[in-house]
Amino acid sequence: MRILITNIKQLCQVEQGDANIKRVSGAEMAELPSIADAWLMIENELIHSFGPMGTLPAANADKTIDATGKLVLPAWCDSHTHLVFAAPRETEFVDRIKGLSYEEIARRGGGILNSARKLNAMCEDELFDQSLERLHAVIKTGTGAIEIKSGYGLCEEGELKMLRVIRRLKGQGPATIKASLLAAHAYPLEYRENKEGYIQLIINKILPRVAGEGLADYMDVFCEQGFFGVRETERLLEAGWKYGLKPKIHANQLHYSGGVQVGVKHNALSVDHLECVGDAEIEALKGSNTMPVLLPGAAFFLGIQYQPARKIIDAGLPVCLATDYNPGSCPSGNVPLLISIACTQLKMTPEEAINAVTINGAAAMELEQSIGTIAVGKKANIFITNKIPSFDYIPYDYGNNPVETVILNGKLI
Amino acid sequence: MRILITNIKQLCQVEQGDANIKRVSGAEMAELPSIADAWLMIENELIHSFGPMGTLPAANADKTIDATGKLVLPAWCDSHTHLVFAAPRETEFVDRIKGLSYEEIARRGGGILNSARKLNAMCEDELFDQSLERLHAVIKTGTGAIEIKSGYGLCEEGELKMLRVIRRLKGQGPATIKASLLAAHAYPLEYRENKEGYIQLIINKILPRVAGEGLADYMDVFCEQGFFGVRETERLLEAGWKYGLKPKIHANQLHYSGGVQVGVKHNALSVDHLECVGDAEIEALKGSNTMPVLLPGAAFFLGIQYQPARKIIDAGLPVCLATDYNPGSCPSGNVPLLISIACTQLKMTPEEAINAVTINGAAAMELEQSIGTIAVGKKANIFITNKIPSFDYIPYDYGNNPVETVILNGKLI
Repeated sequence: MRILITNIKQLCQVEQGDANIKRVSGAEMAELPSIADAWLMIENELIHSFGPMGTLPAANADKTIDATGKLVLPAWCDSHTHLVFAAPRETEFVDRIKGLSYEEIARRGGGILNSARKLNAMCEDELFDQSLERLHAVIKTGTGAIEIKSGYGLCEEGELKMLRVIRRLKGQGPATIKASLLAAHAYPLEYRENKEGYIQLIINKILPRVAGEGLADYMDVFCEQGFFGVRETERLLEAGWKYGLKPKIHANQLHYSGGVQVGVKHNALSVDHLECVGDAEIEALKGSNTMPVLLPGAAFFLGIQYQPARKIIDAGLPVCLATDYNPGSCPSGNVPLLISIACTQLKMTPEEAINAVTINGAAAMELEQSIGTIAVGKKANIFITNKIPSFDYIPYDYGNNPVETVILNGKLI
Repeated sequence: MRILITNIKQLCQVEQGDANIKRVSGAEMAELPSIADAWLMIENELIHSFGPMGTLPAANADKTIDATGKLVLPAWCDSHTHLVFAAPRETEFVDRIKGLSYEEIARRGGGILNSARKLNAMCEDELFDQSLERLHAVIKTGTGAIEIKSGYGLCEEGELKMLRVIRRLKGQGPATIKASLLAAHAYPLEYRENKEGYIQLIINKILPRVAGEGLADYMDVFCEQGFFGVRETERLLEAGWKYGLKPKIHANQLHYSGGVQVGVKHNALSVDHLECVGDAEIEALKGSNTMPVLLPGAAFFLGIQYQPARKIIDAGLPVCLATDYNPGSCPSGNVPLLISIACTQLKMTPEEAINAVTINGAAAMELEQSIGTIAVGKKANIFITNKIPSFDYIPYDYGNNPVETVILNGKLI
């Protein structure tokens, strides 16, 4: 099966020759290699070839798509979500507007514990159906690969149920999915006076079962004041590593929690959130392979300070953007709107923002060899936009979906 | 023609008895009168009757819509837009990210002057077609009434062309449209050294022709440092009043410009923008009939300070929200997203935000007697949402369009 796309106004984020970009950092992020007036050939599930229209081969295709006036980009890689959840939390949203803080709501048994109660009361099939609907919705805005966390179970069966739902979503296709075990998302009520007991439950019971069933790719911990401290985070990450689960952690959202440093120390694939980043965090990240992942959609929704993207990029580091799609602090998995927020509030350029949620998003899921750029031999995970003047228009036209056609694994969605 | 909507989960913003709410102010804004499990009957273009499902009459309807799980609200009233324009300005958006201020871009001949060059180069029919497309797009997100300004002509023929396009949009239906003359949007390049000459052109040439052809409902001035000062604003408003055009002005966006005070002094229908509001502005507004209109979408897009909505509401004043849809500082006419920004950033409650863009939006266009609430005898300008739990979900689910079906003047769109 061959699909040929012709007359592409701008073919964006291309890699000439073999695909070998691992991630882009610092000043490199300002570049988004593109070909104006281009064609792209897909063969089966892979990108077969591409080039400027002047080089269009006389090859036969089973289907030809005329993309006059339209752009083609690699599908978004959203490396941090909590897409599997049981119910929205709009009531807490109103409580926050009226003055309660996110932490106060959590202390009252709202927040993550609220989601946990509802998730544990819901059967796996219903949870799957709801989550699949959300997954289809984010694919419509261009997402092709997504990481999804557990963390609303907070008990052995609940965490396993969530991870089984994520496994079923993986099997369902067409998105590429990675799963993270986030049992250490909050202390459940019954362990409030016995935190050590919950850590041991995770290390001795949940983790071995999850690893035994191959249900998770990564180990996540919410390292934050009032949640899991640096010492607890270390113990959990070490336990995860014993089962081969690399860390991807929640760090420095509400405080200078030491999360970045502990993540780097334990070779985390990524440290995520990063509202609170000072010189010590920058220094820790330099020279590491750990990806800083910013979640400005959550900062927008909570009305808290935004992440210092410019400081991180100007230090020569890479920046990845992800949605943090979840019912409490960011009920949106809309990547085009995320890019708008990154450009308008974090002062990232469109090139930087698009790099952050394509190749760097892929890197934050260890998928940089197969997706995240337009390169020969990579998976044909792309989207075609509406008629728009340039990729700058994607963040500019905020609130509108620029995505017209999505192709994942070489198949029209 | 009768349309009956049944099983409405929440019929929002209802007025029992005769429609007589003029606008809602201060603490009243926290209330959004609603009926759970309701029906609504439309007859021809008007709301005929409504009530709780227990009171559903045995009347015949030509069409029945089952709204199980869905909400019904009055269509949005967007009282401040520049929807008629010739081209987007995404390049300036990128310039701003890279550090240029909105004012610097304006001084370089970008900004409004950039839009004016493009508008004057475009024929009326193309301008109309583009604008109609935008109008249809905002209707899909629930807008039923909209104010549209001139101000990208900045010359006699250009301003008249814009206002004729707005008149054609009025004639096209189905949205209710008000037109404002905003020739005083910026000084055109050829009058940069002869500002008095441009003011006289507006007063002596443009205004008499616009009024003579009945092309405008309101007189608008961009009262701001570097644009039109208080003295010039006064002269222009006085000239407008001579032709019966009430003022609706741009005030206090970038500075404490005196715009609020001069608007109130000249009985402006509304003073719009209001990023800069101190005690003097609050005092001026108290006891006046002038509506404070906040445009937080522009503050979001420009990355500047948000309007002090709480301060205005807590002073007992009304607040109106509008999109400011325009190619420079807010390329979005999406009211649901505007409401999300108002709730998350200005800390308005969902009730306050919905009041601000329904009845108070209607009042800012002198349409409060015919739209803006669900009341017997008012125009049937409403929308039906997707299945959502409550009106709180509209701002919560940010970036998604909650609107499933729009009915304007009693007709399904």
